[in-house]
Amino acid sequence: MQDDKPSYKEYLQLNKILGSQKLRSEVLDKPVHDEMLFIIIHQTYELWFKQIIHEILSVVEYFEDNSINETNINTVVLRLERINDIQKLTIKKIEILESMTPMDFLEFRDLLNPASGFQSVQFRIIENLLGLKRTNRLKYSKQEYTKFLSKDDKISVEKYENQKTLFDVVESWLERTPFLKDSEFNFWEAYKKSVTLMLDNDVKLINKNTYLSNDGKKEQIDNYKKIYENYDLLFDSNKYNKLLKSGKIKISQKASLAALFIMLYRDEPLLHAPYKLLTKLIDIDHSLNSWRYSHALLAKRMIGNKIGTGGSSGYNYLKKTMDKHSVFNDFSNLSTYLIPKSALPVLPEKLKNKLGYYFNNKDN
Amino acid sequence: MQDDKPSYKEYLQLNKILGSQKLRSEVLDKPVHDEMLFIIIHQTYELWFKQIIHEILSVVEYFEDNSINETNINTVVLRLERINDIQKLTIKKIEILESMTPMDFLEFRDLLNPASGFQSVQFRIIENLLGLKRTNRLKYSKQEYTKFLSKDDKISVEKYENQKTLFDVVESWLERTPFLKDSEFNFWEAYKKSVTLMLDNDVKLINKNTYLSNDGKKEQIDNYKKIYENYDLLFDSNKYNKLLKSGKIKISQKASLAALFIMLYRDEPLLHAPYKLLTKLIDIDHSLNSWRYSHALLAKRMIGNKIGTGGSSGYNYLKKTMDKHSVFNDFSNLSTYLIPKSALPVLPEKLKNKLGYYFNNKDN
Amino acid sequence: MQDDKPSYKEYLQLNKILGSQKLRSEVLDKPVHDEMLFIIIHQTYELWFKQIIHEILSVVEYFEDNSINETNINTVVLRLERINDIQKLTIKKIEILESMTPMDFLEFRDLLNPASGFQSVQFRIIENLLGLKRTNRLKYSKQEYTKFLSKDDKISVEKYENQKTLFDVVESWLERTPFLKDSEFNFWEAYKKSVTLMLDNDVKLINKNTYLSNDGKKEQIDNYKKIYENYDLLFDSNKYNKLLKSGKIKISQKASLAALFIMLYRDEPLLHAPYKLLTKLIDIDHSLNSWRYSHALLAKRMIGNKIGTGGSSGYNYLKKTMDKHSVFNDFSNLSTYLIPKSALPVLPEKLKNKLGYYFNNKDN
Amino acid sequence: MQDDKPSYKEYLQLNKILGSQKLRSEVLDKPVHDEMLFIIIHQTYELWFKQIIHEILSVVEYFEDNSINETNINTVVLRLERINDIQKLTIKKIEILESMTPMDFLEFRDLLNPASGFQSVQFRIIENLLGLKRTNRLKYSKQEYTKFLSKDDKISVEKYENQKTLFDVVESWLERTPFLKDSEFNFWEAYKKSVTLMLDNDVKLINKNTYLSNDGKKEQIDNYKKIYENYDLLFDSNKYNKLLKSGKIKISQKASLAALFIMLYRDEPLLHAPYKLLTKLIDIDHSLNSWRYSHALLAKRMIGNKIGTGGSSGYNYLKKTMDKHSVFNDFSNLSTYLIPKSALPVLPEKLKNKLGYYFNNKDN
Repeated sequence: MQDDKPSYKEYLQLNKILGSQKLRSEVLDKPVHDEMLFIIIHQTYELWFKQIIHEILSVVEYFEDNSINETNINTVVLRLERINDIQKLTIKKIEILESMTPMDFLEFRDLLNPASGFQSVQFRIIENLLGLKRTNRLKYSKQEYTKFLSKDDKISVEKYENQKTLFDVVESWLERTPFLKDSEFNFWEAYKKSVTLMLDNDVKLINKNTYLSNDGKKEQIDNYKKIYENYDLLFDSNKYNKLLKSGKIKISQKASLAALFIMLYRDEPLLHAPYKLLTKLIDIDHSLNSWRYSHALLAKRMIGNKIGTGGSSGYNYLKKTMDKHSVFNDFSNLSTYLIPKSALPVLPEKLKNKLGYYFNNKDN
Repeated sequence: MQDDKPSYKEYLQLNKILGSQKLRSEVLDKPVHDEMLFIIIHQTYELWFKQIIHEILSVVEYFEDNSINETNINTVVLRLERINDIQKLTIKKIEILESMTPMDFLEFRDLLNPASGFQSVQFRIIENLLGLKRTNRLKYSKQEYTKFLSKDDKISVEKYENQKTLFDVVESWLERTPFLKDSEFNFWEAYKKSVTLMLDNDVKLINKNTYLSNDGKKEQIDNYKKIYENYDLLFDSNKYNKLLKSGKIKISQKASLAALFIMLYRDEPLLHAPYKLLTKLIDIDHSLNSWRYSHALLAKRMIGNKIGTGGSSGYNYLKKTMDKHSVFNDFSNLSTYLIPKSALPVLPEKLKNKLGYYFNNKDN
Repeated sequence: MQDDKPSYKEYLQLNKILGSQKLRSEVLDKPVHDEMLFIIIHQTYELWFKQIIHEILSVVEYFEDNSINETNINTVVLRLERINDIQKLTIKKIEILESMTPMDFLEFRDLLNPASGFQSVQFRIIENLLGLKRTNRLKYSKQEYTKFLSKDDKISVEKYENQKTLFDVVESWLERTPFLKDSEFNFWEAYKKSVTLMLDNDVKLINKNTYLSNDGKKEQIDNYKKIYENYDLLFDSNKYNKLLKSGKIKISQKASLAALFIMLYRDEPLLHAPYKLLTKLIDIDHSLNSWRYSHALLAKRMIGNKIGTGGSSGYNYLKKTMDKHSVFNDFSNLSTYLIPKSALPVLPEKLKNKLGYYFNNKDN
Repeated sequence: MQDDKPSYKEYLQLNKILGSQKLRSEVLDKPVHDEMLFIIIHQTYELWFKQIIHEILSVVEYFEDNSINETNINTVVLRLERINDIQKLTIKKIEILESMTPMDFLEFRDLLNPASGFQSVQFRIIENLLGLKRTNRLKYSKQEYTKFLSKDDKISVEKYENQKTLFDVVESWLERTPFLKDSEFNFWEAYKKSVTLMLDNDVKLINKNTYLSNDGKKEQIDNYKKIYENYDLLFDSNKYNKLLKSGKIKISQKASLAALFIMLYRDEPLLHAPYKLLTKLIDIDHSLNSWRYSHALLAKRMIGNKIGTGGSSGYNYLKKTMDKHSVFNDFSNLSTYLIPKSALPVLPEKLKNKLGYYFNNKDN
């Protein structure tokens, strides 16, 4: 068969793919049957990680070129959607590993030492590429995560810490959003008015809630005070930037504002794809957390409170990273600031036209 | 059509089932399209909750009769398995609710006030029936959970607090396990010896782990000190009962020991079904927590940091209940005490026979 | 509690929902435990059917008003997507019913007679609303499907046979597509040229395929002759309409052509949503068929070759409806006519502008 | 790092796994982004196929040794269960490939020629190992399936045609089942009596079914005549063997009878695992068919009626293999012969004891 006419097997390089499963337990009297599953499931994980990296890189490239536009944004959304679909599959896949019982795992666990999923370079690259900063990483056994990697792997992951991340390019793109303010319309001011009305109404509902004790009401009204304060933060650059510096918020005020505009006016044709894009980023974050949680449960089931093969205290470490390693939670938190369509400031006709298609624009 | 020959529609009482969707948003100029989804998804949840209760009650009944035996234990396992399958479906179902956007929800959210999923009587009954004690419940707005229920509903849920729970009957059944000690074999002593060997080996591995700093090693060896102490607790009744009283452990020492025996010797025919039973209880706990987490994420996506329709601060409340409302975590923690098959004390032949089938018993 | 402040239980009408499970097997000495599952799973199916009907009706309404436009088409797509998500859930749900064994089912099967899923009015309405014509329905025991329904139910389902279906409104909408032909551009002609090139190339590939025997080549080239003939049909109104009359094709030539245009130029902003719409219709058809197949397998597992409770020979009937009851298969068959992007006729700039947004139109 | 202390990357041989994706479309001006997905998804399929083969081989080995017993049968069931879980995952995975649109695929489809999934050696090995006979295979383009494989691959797949298959070993094992006939109990005779009663009852129900027309009744009663004849076949060795020879039935009369006994008395402890084993074989068959159907739908969506890259007419070929390549359908058809528990012949006490555990045997 000529090189330029590969067979199925050659095309997929199956000799290499299917020749890469060497059981460590072969040194025992009897190899452990389930080690094959352990190897293969991790290899499929790594293949999917490669695919996820392939997709994120292509998305970042679209944004970096400044070539993101109304035609290719749909491609970007499709690729983020695909990432999320892959994530859901990998969560589902954990169920198969559950068919290996803790005692089956114990049979070969010691032979793996010190190999550990904690050393997955690609998983760290995914986290870095999405936008997880070193300063936001949970330390493990008081060590930097790179401490557990070989020299070459350390270089690989750090490379992605120092280049534009998905978070970075999305933030810049949001900051470039036009439409938010012109002579006719000031989104910020119009929105401020509407939101105040709504919050006041919520407080009234709490006060009227007959199920709540006085203490309960107090607690929730205190909660609302925080929400009012949150709004103040949105409006007050000084306060906002203070939060940014403290790390409690990650996204810039300008980008935050644009994201909110997109969420609120998502029905306008031009904003539909940007809205889906933001939604998918939230989905990706959530799925990553669901994966971490399923993995934490698996670790607990497999080794209880014992340390993992890489020295990790498994369940606790993974569970703690759920919130701590989130990258796009500022976007899901924006739901706090949404208001019902009926309360939404009406857009001036000129702006509405701009957000529509050329084809059905009344001017034409 | 005669009463004793129902049609499909009569059998399923579809007139009632399909006639129970009244949109609150009908009072608005235009009913909100997505409210139908909101109602129907919750109704299907409640139907599944009814089914789960039906299954748990039947399982508890088997145990309570003292009629649990080697024939019907398979039925019990099957029903627990079914509960878990239903749980997985309900987690999956949350994805459909995600097709309703936060702003769609805002359109009718205020009309629901103060109705809230927090008031689901059946969900509380499930928690109670599994074995969640009042003292272990997370308070909500500093209130007992019954505070948010009507008088009748309060009576319904409290009834299940005061009767035998699944936890109770499983614990008693475990305590009745024979086999653990006779003139020939003392499981406790034999196991103690094996486990000490294994732990000593784990500590050696940590000391040899070149990836770990000295601080890291120290942290993990301290961790192992705790594990050694945990074993002490298993062996020392005084210490164990102290933990029981403190609420850190829920299951009795005797039941704990029996569960461990079952897990370790699960390959013996008689122990296979008991082993699956314990596994399914862990699964049910985990699935309930995954459900709580998906629900927490949904709450965050829908209303951000705002309070839920029932006055709950959504995400945080649900996330906190994940560990706190676990009922069977003592069983998943038992994995800490497992040892590889190769290190397992050998059972005396007589005991091995007892755990086998009559048919292929060598005596016959 | 006042009527306008419903509790969770009142809002969801749980008294009715949870009070509608009456086991037929209560007449036996001991009610059959699994009949509850049988009832509840069917009730959740019917609730989801109601939701699907709610979504289809709303979609048809958008189209019927002639008010389908670039803003609300995204809503339409979202609702079709939701229908498909619900379908996937209902397929998944069948797995739970599999936890009931055939012999458990036999315990109460006779008591159900003659009730049968075949009598589900809502399922027939869904088929009718999508666009399944009476003439395309597989007869069952040589009878019309309405023969198995009560008088009222017959009226309900026939009502939806005689009003605009999703198929009808989508077809009309496609027929109204502008852009396909103007002074500058004739899509039909341009496409014809490109496609001929591509097909000729495919035939060459077959001839060069060394794996194929001469007979094999002949068979496939004959297959290509049919494809060439298919193209002729697309172009030749007389031939096309003959096929339409024979029932082998369901969609009009004009609509077919427009659908193809949308599929080929889906990257243009204005065509993105229409493309997703067509894709979702294919998905809905496929999911319905997967559901039918899972159901057929279930029937076989439960009752083998015996007749179902409604008198249906289960497996065979359901399996035959898979292809026969498809409504949108003309759309999936359109893939036959796709060509690679690189071979696609280039659109004149003026048309390309029309398919873009007003905002980034170069004229502005 | 020493060879006996592999890192995560070395253990999983990630250099080979992640270095095996070479895009054919690199020869184009711009590599096609989605080809990476196409390669990786197929590589993960092949990895899972390897795992499935690993499981089937281990199961066959247990049976071949004649070492299948009451202890390890649970292991066998667990491994079949795992195979089925993997199958479900691979069906789910097809959804991800659907995120590649037909036109994306067309971009690089020609470059793959003549590589085709039809050439997957491992998939053929799975079919062979399960027990698919050459004579039952659907020919493709009038050719043997081995015609499309390289010489070496042909040898690989044919090796598994000529050794014991899962079907073979299960059949032998069933034929060895004791218990079916002794001085006290003749299962065959007792069952024959019970079943006649039940069938007569079914016929009565049809006759009384008011929904059915006379023609409908006639059709179904004719159907029952066939069922009666089926029973005759079960009882009459001459007739049975005739069917065997014709290929309409695959499993021997003796094995058929034993399988029925297991299904009917599955509640007896000793029969529980054998029952699950039969159920899992049915599941594996069904999942394989669901996979074929999903794959057929994908083929249709991707290339319509065009031939696949391997020369296959995709949809039709795959759809036809669904029934034709089933291996264990005789087991699912056995449901035809099930009868309700209440109608089941009562087992003599001595036999009942034999089917129980030694431990709780009344003799002891």
